[in-house]
Amino acid sequence: MNSFGRLFRLSIVGESHSGSVGIIIDGCPPGIALIDKDFDADLSRRKSGPIGTSARMETDLPVIKNGVLNSTTTGAPLYIEFQNSDKRPDDYDNIKHTPRPGHADFTAYKKYSGFNDYRGGGHFSGRLTVGIVAAGVVAKKIMPGIEFTTKLIEAGGFNDIDKNDIDKNDIDKTVESAIRANDSIGGIIECRVVNIPAGLGEPYFDSIESALAHAVFSIPGIKGIEFGAGFAAATMTGSQHNDSIIDADGSTSTNNSGGINGGISNGNELVFRVAVKPASSIPQQQGTIDLRTGNRVNIEITGRHDACFALRVPVIVEAAAAIVLADFQLIRNAYLA
Amino acid sequence: MNSFGRLFRLSIVGESHSGSVGIIIDGCPPGIALIDKDFDADLSRRKSGPIGTSARMETDLPVIKNGVLNSTTTGAPLYIEFQNSDKRPDDYDNIKHTPRPGHADFTAYKKYSGFNDYRGGGHFSGRLTVGIVAAGVVAKKIMPGIEFTTKLIEAGGFNDIDKNDIDKNDIDKTVESAIRANDSIGGIIECRVVNIPAGLGEPYFDSIESALAHAVFSIPGIKGIEFGAGFAAATMTGSQHNDSIIDADGSTSTNNSGGINGGISNGNELVFRVAVKPASSIPQQQGTIDLRTGNRVNIEITGRHDACFALRVPVIVEAAAAIVLADFQLIRNAYLA
Amino acid sequence: MNSFGRLFRLSIVGESHSGSVGIIIDGCPPGIALIDKDFDADLSRRKSGPIGTSARMETDLPVIKNGVLNSTTTGAPLYIEFQNSDKRPDDYDNIKHTPRPGHADFTAYKKYSGFNDYRGGGHFSGRLTVGIVAAGVVAKKIMPGIEFTTKLIEAGGFNDIDKNDIDKNDIDKTVESAIRANDSIGGIIECRVVNIPAGLGEPYFDSIESALAHAVFSIPGIKGIEFGAGFAAATMTGSQHNDSIIDADGSTSTNNSGGINGGISNGNELVFRVAVKPASSIPQQQGTIDLRTGNRVNIEITGRHDACFALRVPVIVEAAAAIVLADFQLIRNAYLA
Amino acid sequence: MNSFGRLFRLSIVGESHSGSVGIIIDGCPPGIALIDKDFDADLSRRKSGPIGTSARMETDLPVIKNGVLNSTTTGAPLYIEFQNSDKRPDDYDNIKHTPRPGHADFTAYKKYSGFNDYRGGGHFSGRLTVGIVAAGVVAKKIMPGIEFTTKLIEAGGFNDIDKNDIDKNDIDKTVESAIRANDSIGGIIECRVVNIPAGLGEPYFDSIESALAHAVFSIPGIKGIEFGAGFAAATMTGSQHNDSIIDADGSTSTNNSGGINGGISNGNELVFRVAVKPASSIPQQQGTIDLRTGNRVNIEITGRHDACFALRVPVIVEAAAAIVLADFQLIRNAYLA
Repeated sequence: MNSFGRLFRLSIVGESHSGSVGIIIDGCPPGIALIDKDFDADLSRRKSGPIGTSARMETDLPVIKNGVLNSTTTGAPLYIEFQNSDKRPDDYDNIKHTPRPGHADFTAYKKYSGFNDYRGGGHFSGRLTVGIVAAGVVAKKIMPGIEFTTKLIEAGGFNDIDKNDIDKNDIDKTVESAIRANDSIGGIIECRVVNIPAGLGEPYFDSIESALAHAVFSIPGIKGIEFGAGFAAATMTGSQHNDSIIDADGSTSTNNSGGINGGISNGNELVFRVAVKPASSIPQQQGTIDLRTGNRVNIEITGRHDACFALRVPVIVEAAAAIVLADFQLIRNAYLA
Repeated sequence: MNSFGRLFRLSIVGESHSGSVGIIIDGCPPGIALIDKDFDADLSRRKSGPIGTSARMETDLPVIKNGVLNSTTTGAPLYIEFQNSDKRPDDYDNIKHTPRPGHADFTAYKKYSGFNDYRGGGHFSGRLTVGIVAAGVVAKKIMPGIEFTTKLIEAGGFNDIDKNDIDKNDIDKTVESAIRANDSIGGIIECRVVNIPAGLGEPYFDSIESALAHAVFSIPGIKGIEFGAGFAAATMTGSQHNDSIIDADGSTSTNNSGGINGGISNGNELVFRVAVKPASSIPQQQGTIDLRTGNRVNIEITGRHDACFALRVPVIVEAAAAIVLADFQLIRNAYLA
Repeated sequence: MNSFGRLFRLSIVGESHSGSVGIIIDGCPPGIALIDKDFDADLSRRKSGPIGTSARMETDLPVIKNGVLNSTTTGAPLYIEFQNSDKRPDDYDNIKHTPRPGHADFTAYKKYSGFNDYRGGGHFSGRLTVGIVAAGVVAKKIMPGIEFTTKLIEAGGFNDIDKNDIDKNDIDKTVESAIRANDSIGGIIECRVVNIPAGLGEPYFDSIESALAHAVFSIPGIKGIEFGAGFAAATMTGSQHNDSIIDADGSTSTNNSGGINGGISNGNELVFRVAVKPASSIPQQQGTIDLRTGNRVNIEITGRHDACFALRVPVIVEAAAAIVLADFQLIRNAYLA
Repeated sequence: MNSFGRLFRLSIVGESHSGSVGIIIDGCPPGIALIDKDFDADLSRRKSGPIGTSARMETDLPVIKNGVLNSTTTGAPLYIEFQNSDKRPDDYDNIKHTPRPGHADFTAYKKYSGFNDYRGGGHFSGRLTVGIVAAGVVAKKIMPGIEFTTKLIEAGGFNDIDKNDIDKNDIDKTVESAIRANDSIGGIIECRVVNIPAGLGEPYFDSIESALAHAVFSIPGIKGIEFGAGFAAATMTGSQHNDSIIDADGSTSTNNSGGINGGISNGNELVFRVAVKPASSIPQQQGTIDLRTGNRVNIEITGRHDACFALRVPVIVEAAAAIVLADFQLIRNAYLA
């Protein structure tokens, strides 16, 4: 269903080409200063514009319709709405009966017996992540001391482990060559979070990894997540992987666990990486079926799309992390009082 | 918290060295034949015994205490209990104040203000996964047509992509060398599921990936999960990654999506892999602190442990998948009636 | 928190004097015809207008912002919004520091540390029930065969048991005399529902009574609920109270149980009654405190209020019943498929 | 489903005549002293024994199987089990096909397609309330300052408003006359709770009334609940019903609201009453049907039953209140930290 969280709780609505998308943020503490401008920085990180991102230009102006009085949260649920101003619902008439490979068109058709909003993916669109980013902004305000660093560390196969950051020129070149080839590329995003207190997370069924993965896999196009050493841990020995504890705060000599033991934060840096697939919309002939006849047909997707939507995803992943941590922090408070 | 699922709903209890562990399975349909013997096959896949697994030998006899009458589920919640018959709580007196690296000892101490059951990890122990396996057996009965294949495809760095299966001799040799080195090794597990109907899963926040990752990261020692092409998708182009649809059932020419589009099953094979870290308990000197003084000390863990607990994890991962799919199937039923 | 339901799931937002109130309806089946006009009949039953109701006149035009395409539900969550067009936020400056007796002013101030939206009760206002009525309309469409009859059977002490309906003239006279006395009156509402299939509801913790009471007590001003014989059952003997079963469908000779046994519907008429308190806003001097000083002061509430808001509540109670039954019907479907 | 609560969370299992009943208590804070003896006082209030209660004599010895170490809660979930030692499952063979009027036999048969445990009501039995009482004991320990007074204020029609307590001799006489008439009687229970801080409870959908009613209607045989003035409020005017606020703590001159405004505690005494129906099991001929034939038959219930089970219910109602308040207190803590 379209809700997430226990105390800090989201409910999401909207479609790519309806009038608007929005998000309810319930369980937000009262007394938090909140104005439209607070959303600018994170929303701009998600925006189209740079090379490799879609030509669809949304203003992404957050309208805080409820839950705020005198620029301060009241304790009642927030509803934040975003207009779909640059929508073109008619662009999708041609795909109504020919589900695009890689997209949710076929599965939505099956799940909703053909009543799904097929226009640009409808409710399955990445457009709705604008609400997740907004919720992330609010979540960060609940934990003022915590700091996030989230970036693309690999795109289209390029990465630079030594510099621990991918060179912008390399990305641009890869993106440009993908655009020339009428194709798209994926990437890997790393999120690092410091100053998380030890003791967040729940045992069995609500580990930090469980909740974070749950939130992150709500973002369209994510195909993998790993924590700390991650998949590389499978090739390590225990003596390599174990992080020695070196002080009373629980600091460790290495951080292969990624800041989590037994599903609970240990006070060290939280580290995780997610794999973003290449965008499914590419201006090439692709094989699919006609839902009316069941016959195979070729389609070519036109319109405005991201050649590398991984460029826009870091802030969404970061928001998902902030949302999960804020919820765990509130739950933690319940037992410290 | 210790619950999971929406209609097919689990609540888990227990500790490694208390009298028992158990699981409530709520929302199980009435009329399902269920006897103790039904659990044998899956429980034996999780058992110790082979080289590389712990010397702790539990009988793992399931006691169905509630929810069954005349060998048939009644519709009321099941409670299935497992005695801890080979427990040795006193083995852990020496670690009470010296948290073991890689384990949940330090984080549990912090989270529960020192009141946690420290004996063998207490509630954080993999011992509780016996209940998850039991719930998986029940879940599979809800979906009789669905078939699972789950196996270790890499251990200690060994894998054989071509044969799509790791050679048992290679594993044994790797495990033996880890044992000789007083060390442990990790591995990668792949789960494949066929005959899932298209249309399972929910949009935003309850995608199949979200729910599966949530469940799988409840298993101690899992550090990563990927679906379909997974992390490799980050290096592919859209034209490589997109799966062409080739018939009216939604069959695709390739399966890079792993059977999921937009979080919803597309009817193709569900494929995912998880990374299992090497066991944290190794018979070597390791650095930690004394919680009473904050001083650094060295400890050496004695007792009975798995040199390669990844050998026992496939059936647990498979159970987690069955649990998630059963829940989604029930929810799907609600809208097909 | 501001959510309710398991499969048919609501999330509510809004305040009395902000720009709008709204409701997310998640889990609504796809393919249900839905246009604005469908809401007219029920919304008009909740409207002000008749003698004894507030002079605040809202247009109550539902705006279906999401979840509907071509006048049909898509399966994605609905968001239905209502503008607050006749709001007067400045009317409440004088009560900001002097909580009105009987209202949530004092408790909201305490709960939200003074950051609550105090204007007309803010988020605690009965204004938000317009969204509950809208959700009720959608819920009724999920169960087309079920019929509701909900009415005021007592107001200001007047009732007519024999006619099983209170005389409209008696109410009007009572209301008029309350208005003349600058006072308000309460009432009792009875809801009867026929054609509910046997087998809805859940054992322990989610009985029909539990869920219905939960929903109904979300409506401001409700102070009691009883099912079937209700409080009168306390004075009956078992031989009087027990309903003999007289046919294979479970029809009973009497209906003291109100259509529910063990928390589960038995196929007979569902009958329950709720007590509505007199409106707290009355144009009389009342004693309260000044939150800034803690000193006792007298206030007189001005503005637009209902002398008998019980007149507007039947449709809200009915909507709550429809919401609960729709959720139970969907859950029931899950096990019948 | 069989779970309740948000942070302080229960999951219940068991049947009247299986081996045991039990309850998981999740979200209990660590560090709370807890031994078997702590349950004695409340469990004895629920026990059979006095005139008018069943001849079934259970020892009701709580077995704390999980979640406690060294007589102290660990933070992990508790599982508390009670053996069914005085069970007689064969007593119920004769009712397997003839559902008892007033009981859940018919509805359970319908809901679970005939697979329900029919022995003594199975999972629907009041036997399971022993677990609710146990959870209430734990809940009370979370709120040490709060005091509960819960008693039968009316039984079989007898009450004494002036003395605010029903005369024990009157009850005994009424019960005796019911026993002589092979009949049963109901009653009304009042629960009063002092020292609740202002600010507990949640707006829309999780008011104190909603949560309390939800919990209380999980107790078999409850047919009504009212808060403060309750149903009498329907006959009052606003000027009579409104409680003037008389000091900075929110103390009120009267308490018609029962300590709750807008669903949130106001710091005054919490007052609510519940109606308990007469026991459905009476040693008289009653009409029902044979489920195999659909034909009408007469049955006479034999065995051991309560002529006035309302005598045993006060402590269960009190436990339900404690459970709800503990959950709200934990949620409140989350926002005060």
